[in-house]
Amino acid sequence: MSTVGAGIPEPPRDEPNSAWLSEEELSEARRRLPLLYVEAVPVRVDGLGVVTHVGVLLRANPAGEITRTLVSGRVMFGETIRDALFRHLEKDLGPMAFPLLPASPVPFQVAEYFPIPGLSAYVDERQHAVALAYVVPVTGTCEPRQDALELTWVTPAEASSPTFHAELEGGRGSLLRAALASVGVLG
Amino acid sequence: MSTVGAGIPEPPRDEPNSAWLSEEELSEARRRLPLLYVEAVPVRVDGLGVVTHVGVLLRANPAGEITRTLVSGRVMFGETIRDALFRHLEKDLGPMAFPLLPASPVPFQVAEYFPIPGLSAYVDERQHAVALAYVVPVTGTCEPRQDALELTWVTPAEASSPTFHAELEGGRGSLLRAALASVGVLG
Amino acid sequence: MSTVGAGIPEPPRDEPNSAWLSEEELSEARRRLPLLYVEAVPVRVDGLGVVTHVGVLLRANPAGEITRTLVSGRVMFGETIRDALFRHLEKDLGPMAFPLLPASPVPFQVAEYFPIPGLSAYVDERQHAVALAYVVPVTGTCEPRQDALELTWVTPAEASSPTFHAELEGGRGSLLRAALASVGVLG
Amino acid sequence: MSTVGAGIPEPPRDEPNSAWLSEEELSEARRRLPLLYVEAVPVRVDGLGVVTHVGVLLRANPAGEITRTLVSGRVMFGETIRDALFRHLEKDLGPMAFPLLPASPVPFQVAEYFPIPGLSAYVDERQHAVALAYVVPVTGTCEPRQDALELTWVTPAEASSPTFHAELEGGRGSLLRAALASVGVLG
Repeated sequence: MSTVGAGIPEPPRDEPNSAWLSEEELSEARRRLPLLYVEAVPVRVDGLGVVTHVGVLLRANPAGEITRTLVSGRVMFGETIRDALFRHLEKDLGPMAFPLLPASPVPFQVAEYFPIPGLSAYVDERQHAVALAYVVPVTGTCEPRQDALELTWVTPAEASSPTFHAELEGGRGSLLRAALASVGVLG
Repeated sequence: MSTVGAGIPEPPRDEPNSAWLSEEELSEARRRLPLLYVEAVPVRVDGLGVVTHVGVLLRANPAGEITRTLVSGRVMFGETIRDALFRHLEKDLGPMAFPLLPASPVPFQVAEYFPIPGLSAYVDERQHAVALAYVVPVTGTCEPRQDALELTWVTPAEASSPTFHAELEGGRGSLLRAALASVGVLG
Repeated sequence: MSTVGAGIPEPPRDEPNSAWLSEEELSEARRRLPLLYVEAVPVRVDGLGVVTHVGVLLRANPAGEITRTLVSGRVMFGETIRDALFRHLEKDLGPMAFPLLPASPVPFQVAEYFPIPGLSAYVDERQHAVALAYVVPVTGTCEPRQDALELTWVTPAEASSPTFHAELEGGRGSLLRAALASVGVLG
Repeated sequence: MSTVGAGIPEPPRDEPNSAWLSEEELSEARRRLPLLYVEAVPVRVDGLGVVTHVGVLLRANPAGEITRTLVSGRVMFGETIRDALFRHLEKDLGPMAFPLLPASPVPFQVAEYFPIPGLSAYVDERQHAVALAYVVPVTGTCEPRQDALELTWVTPAEASSPTFHAELEGGRGSLLRAALASVGVLG
């Protein structure tokens, strides 16, 4: 999940509030509290709102492996969910993506990540995180920055396949399929 | 609900399918089957997707009274819900409204209109109609045509008030408030 | 979809309104109007509301083939969606199923069935039908009656598989997967 | 929000995980991180799932004033949202309430509480809290314990009124109305 997830503190200029945590304090919080995240599935839609393509990130995880993942990151103290969503979309897709944030603040799914597998479909070795997940149409040009290597656009049919499913990290294959289902295009 | 609702057959060029009903056949169907409608609450959103204004139509109803209402109309045989939604938005808001249809086909509410009051919050003297209702951001210029007199933009706070609520026909005050609640701006 | 779907008029005692259609009139309506349906995915839940099993019907379709399907049927004139849902659940699962209808009238998905494939994920050769689909926990004993041969309970993991998916008629594999996704258990 | 909210640490026997925070550590976390909460609107439903009554708590807030509020409390480290929801329902309604947790983990609304008014509809002087809110039918007998003085059952019409709205603390009048809208009974 984002650079925070990779263990690198985010640059102060991205912080919405001066109360951000040091690396050490964040590690401490991670052992004591569930952390709040947002996740986004960027999509392309046609003139009638039908999802035609789904954007998935290629990223090197902390272990150096290349995996697929979604736009994702932590909600900071004092930050609204919309601000966090916009900030992480810009961080992962670049400033020209022009995302259209949903009018409704209700996520299509709530993903609960636990350090130990089996409690839910989602696993995050570092922490207990609860992510509010949204489908977000983007209308501009996406240029992944920071640690994301590439953004791949796939069709809903490709994204629905079990093989694609297995390539996503931390159980996000299930989350992607729930995203496709929520917009009526799961194959 | 739209010109169909007012008892005037829609012009053939608007029909998505040649199997459209004559005035008489439609009257007959109205006494035998629930009719499927779509309704839309047009909204303006800011850069983060927050609803800032809500569009409400002023219309002369069949009895000649001026009432407030929402964008609304029937789904035709062979027509998708998205096509029907787009067609009625264009009919009521004009061709330059540029509506952004939602990626999800799930409505924020299902409104059941019955000819007799008391079965639900919604009444339609002419028929049993079931309407799938959507919040639709519009980005262009709205110029109501046909029998809609005017489109008024109001703030969520204004639209939340009991007095405004009472001005909407057929119980649509409840539907408008449900729309505001679904996007997190009901006062 | 139910006995109505199989072309056999339902017995008058099940009819919520005297205005029900003759076989001939229904055939006529089917060529002119989208018909409103409800569909239900019966589930078993544990003490925390987690779905543990999903109920799927085995049925002989009009062509005499055995297929899997969901609880489904038409909404009659004058009937509320809840009444229709309850009536079809009782018809397909028997009077001792004790379904817990959802407090929210918003479906998890809207399935659009067209006579011609390609317009949507769902096909119904007989008609254009729009189905509001709900996940419904049942707490009692299910004894399918009428033309349903059997009700099978499967785990979410089994129901998520592509092979199971393919056994459902009319594209309802997609609908079942959307149901699983909506309750957070799609594998 | 619950006894945690009132500044009194919850008794260890209620804690799902040994990693719970001391009073001091919780105060510290409150200045640095958004805290994750669940909220519940208990309801009574009829045989068709229609909400007939809504449960609201009377409680003495930390300042000693009597206010109305909803079932609410923090999600602990390692605890699922369902477990937290069940724990707080039991804490606020007693062990015989028999709540039916929703099959879907998606909340009807996400309420963002900030220490400073104006950022959202919700205010919590103590902290930045993000609450996932659910409507939960209860089938048993409710006996509020701990610091809740009383549980009052009101009709949806009563709960929809502006006067009732104003009696709820921290902006929860909006949340209650959104709950009513989500189940189709907002007046």
